[in-house]
Amino acid sequence: MIAEIISTGDEVLTGTVVDSNAAWIAGRLYETGVPVGRHLCVGDDLERLTEVLCETSERADIAIVTGGLGPTVDDITAKAAARAAGVELKQNPTARAYIEEFFKRFARQISDSDAKQAVLPETARPVLNTVGTAPGFNLRIGACSFYFLPGVPFEMRKMMEDHIIPSLSRESAAGGRYFYREKRISLFGLPEAHVNERLVDLTGRMDNVKLGMLAEFPVIHVKLSAYGRDADAMDAAVKAAAGQVKERVGEFMFSESGRSMEEVAGDLLTRRAATLAVAESCTGGLIGHRITNVAGSSQYFAGSIVTYANKAKINLLGVSPDTLERYGAVSEQTAREMAEGAARAAGTDYGLAVSGIAGPGGGTDEKPVGTVCIGFCGPGESFARCYSFGFRNRLANKRIFAEAALDMLRRKLSGLGELRRKATERKD
Amino acid sequence: MIAEIISTGDEVLTGTVVDSNAAWIAGRLYETGVPVGRHLCVGDDLERLTEVLCETSERADIAIVTGGLGPTVDDITAKAAARAAGVELKQNPTARAYIEEFFKRFARQISDSDAKQAVLPETARPVLNTVGTAPGFNLRIGACSFYFLPGVPFEMRKMMEDHIIPSLSRESAAGGRYFYREKRISLFGLPEAHVNERLVDLTGRMDNVKLGMLAEFPVIHVKLSAYGRDADAMDAAVKAAAGQVKERVGEFMFSESGRSMEEVAGDLLTRRAATLAVAESCTGGLIGHRITNVAGSSQYFAGSIVTYANKAKINLLGVSPDTLERYGAVSEQTAREMAEGAARAAGTDYGLAVSGIAGPGGGTDEKPVGTVCIGFCGPGESFARCYSFGFRNRLANKRIFAEAALDMLRRKLSGLGELRRKATERKD
Repeated sequence: MIAEIISTGDEVLTGTVVDSNAAWIAGRLYETGVPVGRHLCVGDDLERLTEVLCETSERADIAIVTGGLGPTVDDITAKAAARAAGVELKQNPTARAYIEEFFKRFARQISDSDAKQAVLPETARPVLNTVGTAPGFNLRIGACSFYFLPGVPFEMRKMMEDHIIPSLSRESAAGGRYFYREKRISLFGLPEAHVNERLVDLTGRMDNVKLGMLAEFPVIHVKLSAYGRDADAMDAAVKAAAGQVKERVGEFMFSESGRSMEEVAGDLLTRRAATLAVAESCTGGLIGHRITNVAGSSQYFAGSIVTYANKAKINLLGVSPDTLERYGAVSEQTAREMAEGAARAAGTDYGLAVSGIAGPGGGTDEKPVGTVCIGFCGPGESFARCYSFGFRNRLANKRIFAEAALDMLRRKLSGLGELRRKATERKD
Repeated sequence: MIAEIISTGDEVLTGTVVDSNAAWIAGRLYETGVPVGRHLCVGDDLERLTEVLCETSERADIAIVTGGLGPTVDDITAKAAARAAGVELKQNPTARAYIEEFFKRFARQISDSDAKQAVLPETARPVLNTVGTAPGFNLRIGACSFYFLPGVPFEMRKMMEDHIIPSLSRESAAGGRYFYREKRISLFGLPEAHVNERLVDLTGRMDNVKLGMLAEFPVIHVKLSAYGRDADAMDAAVKAAAGQVKERVGEFMFSESGRSMEEVAGDLLTRRAATLAVAESCTGGLIGHRITNVAGSSQYFAGSIVTYANKAKINLLGVSPDTLERYGAVSEQTAREMAEGAARAAGTDYGLAVSGIAGPGGGTDEKPVGTVCIGFCGPGESFARCYSFGFRNRLANKRIFAEAALDMLRRKLSGLGELRRKATERKD
């Protein structure tokens, strides 16, 4: 059994709207044991949509089509479906009853354009929409079973969950059900090519487990997935594969359950009942923003002091003017004093600080754009380390600086050494 | 001339990642006068990708393909392209030189897997990637000109802007060109349904100008677009339409050139040669992060003090313990004192503060989740205002609180009154 997903509508085709429906549907199909062959998107164009429906009917067993079921003139999906199936359009009494039922709740009369939504290909079976006016429908074209749904995400999702997933689930089970298993191992601090070198020998050596890599800058996820009939065997195979990956990536792994660096660091603080304050320069508040995206972070996070100007570093963090003068704002000395200053000002157990050059301006030969110094202090310990990540893009630098700072915290709280990157380290 | 867009990769096919590349590429192609026929997505599957490339080559004149150019084993795009074009894969010296050039900046040696990225179909022309290791390439398959680009959005976008859009623009001009005109009017503070009510009478009354609405939470963009051969007439029609929209949305518009709220507010500060400090509570640093996303913001932004805990509000911002006790942290009184404290501590002309309840916990009957108080102070003025936006999602609340605070700054610096939202305002 293989499925295809078709999104229709000019707003998706022209890029006005990002097609998040396709991703959601794909995820649910895989979870139901139905693999997906392709996604397609076409505009509100009768010829092209008809063509696409015919092509898909020759390749797929199942197709989920979204969009174009509404009451307006550019809603042409039912017409295209009828043409592709070679049948007539007809008012469908069940669909008409669904629409009347919906409008009754709002004490509204059905208009002509509302009624148009009950006109379906004559061999179609309507699918109830309890949260919107346009019913969906199921229609066989060739050997493929098509489900036509509205493009409005919450209507589409509700109909998928209520009607289509249960039905596919039964079909999938009847045909000897397929299962999908996936595990993500998230890494920071290794370039993609290095991750690949560490893992390349595993490819082809893992029983039915597919190894993929997904870069979500600046993090890399190693994705282990399996698809098949024997769920227990797959669970064991994915687990064994994960063990082999973990052995090869070691301390660069920060999560094997899809958690973010700030969630992992937050957990480590919670486990110690410890508190944290942050001092940020070029990251501008991004570290604090990320930490506070985690619900419950107020238990361990006191605050962040964003000192963009040197004067603020002196006044708010107590960095010594002498340090700034002698070593500069982007230096191990300043970063360490910032971390200490933040912890002191907020009265916390740990302090974390970032000072760097995000660009596009402000770089020098000695400290180019992409240079960052990360300061850390905790009970009986205080130090800083500088890195040169070498990106030129301001937002990319802010992101990698914030990730590196949170990773420093994770490493120190886990008893690991700090990130060492010979190749990209500043030489001083 | 017609284009197709192909996204490759299991992470997109299985729904792990939403395909935002296709929408961005589609938007840029339309702006360049190149209409799009279809989007397609296939996984990391050599047979299927080859099949899709062959099919597209028979329908389209131009194709943009993203993903699968990296150094890892599941990067199979070059192989599929070579098969579809019926040519061999070969180390490309220009591509190799591009990669070496890129690594020189990091003083890093090229590994075998890095070098793999220089192996291209032998008839391909490499496309320079200045922000990542994988070069792209241009390849003719049948009568269609394919551009293969990395899937990493900022790499793909840079290569599109630097190389492909200029080249397509010339081709499009040579073939008796179609033009695309678009104007975006960005609004904050009106719900989508209210924007719709204000604009509904314009639909169908504007010559060849299409009106669309694009919600980019919490901002709404009204998009006016036209596509045709007479660029001057289209410019005039879009301009006239924009005038009518602006009349109906008034002070809720913050930009008509696609700029973000932080860019607009930054410009207003620059024009006054004024400086700003921020105090944040529940937004956790998001306001400082957004302000510092703008290059050159160090000219007007001194810093942000993120005081998550009450103690920090007292110690770092000088908020009176009495105020906190009597009115609570989420109150007009506290927000005003926070704004004043930030400006005082950093020695700036303006202060902006946010204190609110982002959730999921912490709400009360009187101050439910989604309540926020925004404080503002400037020369001779200091006040605060509370709103209840009523979202339940933590990140959604952080976003709308940050937007509302920056909008408050924009309104005050533009001589407008503050946002009044009767329906959603707290009653106290």
